[in-house]
This record gives sequence, structure tokens and C-alpha cells, in this order.
Amino acid sequence: MNVDKSKFSALFERERMKIEKRLSDALKNRKPFSLYKPAAYILKSGGKRLRPLLVLFSAKAAGGKFSKAYNAAVAVELLHNFTLVHDDIMDNADMRRGRLTVHKKYDLNTAILAGDSLLSVAYEYLLKDSGDHLKKVLDSFTHGLVEVCEGQSMDKDFELLSEVSIDDYMLMIEKKTAAMAEMCCTIGARIACASKQEILALAGFGKNIGIAFQIQDDLLDISGNESEFGKFVGGDLVEGKKTYLFLRALEKSSGKDKKEFHRIIERKGIRQNEIPKFKSLYCKLGVLEDAREEIIRYSNKALSKLKYLKKQEDRDLFIWLTDSLIKRNR
Amino acid sequence: MNVDKSKFSALFERERMKIEKRLSDALKNRKPFSLYKPAAYILKSGGKRLRPLLVLFSAKAAGGKFSKAYNAAVAVELLHNFTLVHDDIMDNADMRRGRLTVHKKYDLNTAILAGDSLLSVAYEYLLKDSGDHLKKVLDSFTHGLVEVCEGQSMDKDFELLSEVSIDDYMLMIEKKTAAMAEMCCTIGARIACASKQEILALAGFGKNIGIAFQIQDDLLDISGNESEFGKFVGGDLVEGKKTYLFLRALEKSSGKDKKEFHRIIERKGIRQNEIPKFKSLYCKLGVLEDAREEIIRYSNKALSKLKYLKKQEDRDLFIWLTDSLIKRNR
Repeated sequence: MNVDKSKFSALFERERMKIEKRLSDALKNRKPFSLYKPAAYILKSGGKRLRPLLVLFSAKAAGGKFSKAYNAAVAVELLHNFTLVHDDIMDNADMRRGRLTVHKKYDLNTAILAGDSLLSVAYEYLLKDSGDHLKKVLDSFTHGLVEVCEGQSMDKDFELLSEVSIDDYMLMIEKKTAAMAEMCCTIGARIACASKQEILALAGFGKNIGIAFQIQDDLLDISGNESEFGKFVGGDLVEGKKTYLFLRALEKSSGKDKKEFHRIIERKGIRQNEIPKFKSLYCKLGVLEDAREEIIRYSNKALSKLKYLKKQEDRDLFIWLTDSLIKRNR
Repeated sequence: MNVDKSKFSALFERERMKIEKRLSDALKNRKPFSLYKPAAYILKSGGKRLRPLLVLFSAKAAGGKFSKAYNAAVAVELLHNFTLVHDDIMDNADMRRGRLTVHKKYDLNTAILAGDSLLSVAYEYLLKDSGDHLKKVLDSFTHGLVEVCEGQSMDKDFELLSEVSIDDYMLMIEKKTAAMAEMCCTIGARIACASKQEILALAGFGKNIGIAFQIQDDLLDISGNESEFGKFVGGDLVEGKKTYLFLRALEKSSGKDKKEFHRIIERKGIRQNEIPKFKSLYCKLGVLEDAREEIIRYSNKALSKLKYLKKQEDRDLFIWLTDSLIKRNR
């Protein structure tokens, strides 16, 4: 496989900049400022802009043009930011991407409403387009929205449940994370009037890469480099989050170790000075390795869908993207 | 004008029951229960179901059938309930329609997410339909959503502002209340493939009846019968809300009276035992009468739009509806 990495990363960067520009214009000159300023604040906080890029690349892979997909690309990023603002409230998170979260910088009411308005403008952006595919694009988008609400609800439920299986966890991340990536790819494909086979292939790519991405997120929380990752290592353990690693550790451990993990559930987390102990336990049980294997398994599953794409160049682009996601450290 | 009231009220009641049934089915069997149970809870709390009826009646008035408009009718009621759940959080309201609000019965996180999911299912319902008019229906719906977010933001801003003009107030209720009624009528008209003139007429009816409805709400808060109104009289004064009556009183008063009203702003409300004093002041200044005049003025403005409807029967139905809204006591 001879993938021209610099070409793809230049393409990614060029399109990412175009999305940035469109995002910074999306809420400009809208009133009242008390609503749109906090909404613009979260939009300006950066992020990888992966979801809009998935829309663009999928449109291209299905024979379409980037230019037809920008509005939908902006829409999915607005939707994503809507979920971030509301999730941060629910998670009582103070910081996001090194800045105060919206409800901390402003207040609860402002954050609820800023989230709502991000979603309303997302639909406005989708509806800037027209054509035969529009209804199906809206169907996919709305389905993604329904799924992400259900996934977030399950995630919050898990905090209170003492028994969560790996299957429960997989269903939750399929809804909360993977459904969004699947939606992005589907929308891009639909905009390009892709064939049914191409739509299914790109949707399958999106879903599996989304699952891999989330497990990677769980893994980075404990194995990431603090300065590169941008948040302190082991945060999920401190908060007692039922991540892939935690649930796998609970499954594999026995005796005294198992009791330790059950204590995390009972106490809803650990103290910061206990992180090294549990990281060692994770290593001993091999759950970091398990997570890595799952990431590779789902990435390969994603890549296997690419055979239905017509051009090798498009396949290579998605291979490059998958590769950079797996190797990411933040 | 010879309006057969019992016929219209029977029609209203029959269609309201059909909407009730559809609303009670809308979230049935959906999982997770932790998300859809609280969403169903607010839907079950009753309400006049005015907005879906506006959709149905507008579709009929534009020559369409009720049967084509039920999904959209359900969608607007879901949208309305989304706003209620989030607004109740922002207003820190404990009760709605004699029951605990969603965030009081459950918790904040549940209420945020239940609101979001009501909106997601609203779009699902709109997208159950198809046809040429669908994009324009979605445009109107999304525009209504944007407006209602902006209106709520302005309403919350007013709480902190010491200077709010009647013009500011009118813009706020146009967005927060009237835009929704306008949207309902527009959507009904569009579903029936109405002419441009019919759409404008019905939209104009909706907007003006929406304004009348909101000023009526402000008036009922101070002049309503406690047991019929369902909340205690004078609540807006206690909360220091900048209603039509309050802003008009501020405008008309002078000297010592004006100082009293300014003190309400400074202190963000009054004590319950001060309500009779301020009600007397309202009477002395004639602001109850002013409100009644505005309600009649906007109702007449709404009715004047009906001349563009084709059938006298449809005009009569809207006349009856306007009449019942003006005479309502809750």
C-alpha cells in the first residue's frame, strides 16, 4: 500500500480551514448576542473537525464534489457542538479543550439555550441545500440526533448501574459516538447521490471507525501523554466511568482485584493518588492490549468496507485517515 | 355573524382527542425508558393542544385534509413541549399544569435530555411525510425553532435589564410565542399546497393571534380567577416579570407610583402580600384596560387576514377559535 501521506494531510488541512471559516461565519451578525456569543464560543474552541471532514470525504468518495457538501459539513459540526454543550452540563465538566465549558464561562441557562440554538442553526444549514437527496439527508441527520440523545441517556444511566456489560457498553458507544460518524458518512454519500452499495459501505466505514475512535479515547485516557492529551491521565478512573477498559478489567479480574474494581463502582471513582495502582492492574490484566486489539479489529472492519468504493485514491484517503486516527495521541 | 359554536367546539374536541392519541403513541416502546419516560411525562400533562389544532385547521382552510397534517400537528406539539421542559429549567419553575416540572420530578440532566429528545422526535414526525411541500414545511419549522430560542434568550435577558421598552417586549413575544403560532398556520397551509396569498393570510392570522394570546396570558396572571387559572394570581409581579402590563404601567406612571415600579425591577419582584396594592395601581393607571384593547386589536388584525380564505365555513371556524381564546380564563 503506497499512500501519499503528505498529500492527504495537506488536503485534510486545506478543507479543515475552509470548514473553520464557514463555522466562524455561521453565527456572525445574529442576534441576540446573549444567545449567539456563547454558541460561537464553543464553536471557536477548536477540535479536530473530524465529522465535517467525514462528510466531505464521503461525498468525494461517492463521486461528488466538496462544494456540494459544505453546508451539511457545517451542520454536523454544529450538531456535534450542541451535544458537547449539553453533555458538559450533564457531566458537570469545568473544562473542554483547555477552556471553560459554556455553563462555567456563562451559566446553566445560557448553556442550555446555546446548545438548543446550535441545533436549530444546524437544521438551517442542512436546509440551505435542495434536491432529491435532501429528505434522505434530513432523515439520516435526524436519526443521528435521536441516537446521540439515546446514547447519552444510556451513558448517564451507566453511572448509576452497578452491572454494565461490555455489550451494553458497545450499544451505548454505537449510539453516542459511532452513530454520528456513520451519519456523517451517510450524509456525504447521499449528497453525492451514491448507489445503495456505496452508501452502505461508507456508513459501515463510519460506524466502525466511530467505535474504534471511542475505544481509542478510553485507552488514551489512561495511556496518553498528559501534555499531548490535554487532560490529566486517569480521569476516567477518578470519575468512576464505565469505559471499555474498566468493564474489561472487571470481567477479567478475580478475587482481590475484582473487589478493588467493584469498590470503584460503589465509591463512584478513586482518588488521584490511586491511579498508578489501577493502571498497573490494567497492565497486569492485559486490558490495554485488549483495547488496542479492539481498536485494530474495528479499524480493519471499517477498512474492509472500502472495497466498494470506485477509486483507489478515495480508498487511500480513508486508509490514511484511519491510520492517523489510530495513531493519534489526543 | 352566525357561527355554529357547538359544531366547532365538537370538531375541536374530536380532533384534539385524535392528537392526544397520537401524542400518547409517539414515544411508546422507545428505549431507553430513562429518556422517553420523562419525555412522555410532560406530553401527558395535558395542555390545550392549540398548536396542533392550528396546523389542522390551517390545512383544512387551505383546501387540504386533516389526515395529511397529523404528523406535522404532532411535531409542533413535541416542539412546544421541548420548549416547556427547557424553559421550566431556566425559569426554575417547580410546577406546570398542576404537576411537578420534569427537572423537579426527575433531575436537571434528565430534563435537558428529555427536551432534546422531544425535539429529535419532532423532526422524525415531520419527516414521516413526503412530497414537494416537505422542504418548505421543514424551513418553517426550523425557522420557528430558531425564533423560539431567540425569544427565550431575550426573555431571560429582560430579567436582568432595568430598561425594557414595550417595543422590545413586542419583539420578544413575536419570537417566543407568536412565531410558533405563525409557524403552525404556515405549516398547515403548506401541507395543503396553499397559494402564496393563503399562506400569508394564515401566517398573519397565526402571528397576530399569538400576540393576542400572550398579552392575554399576561392579563390573566393578574385578573384571572385563581381556581380556574390554575396558578396563583399575581405570580408575574412576585417574580418581577416584565410583562405587557408591567411595562405599560412603568410607561404611564409618574412620581411615587413610578418609583414603586422601579423598585420592583431593583428588587426583582415583590412580596405576595403586596399584590393587591400593585393590582390597584394597575387599575388606577388603566393598564388592564390597555391590555384588553391590545388583545382585541391583535385579534381583529388576525381576523382581518381571514378574508383571503375561500370558504365562509373556514373563516367561521377561525372566528370561533379566536373568540374562545379571547374569552378563555386559563
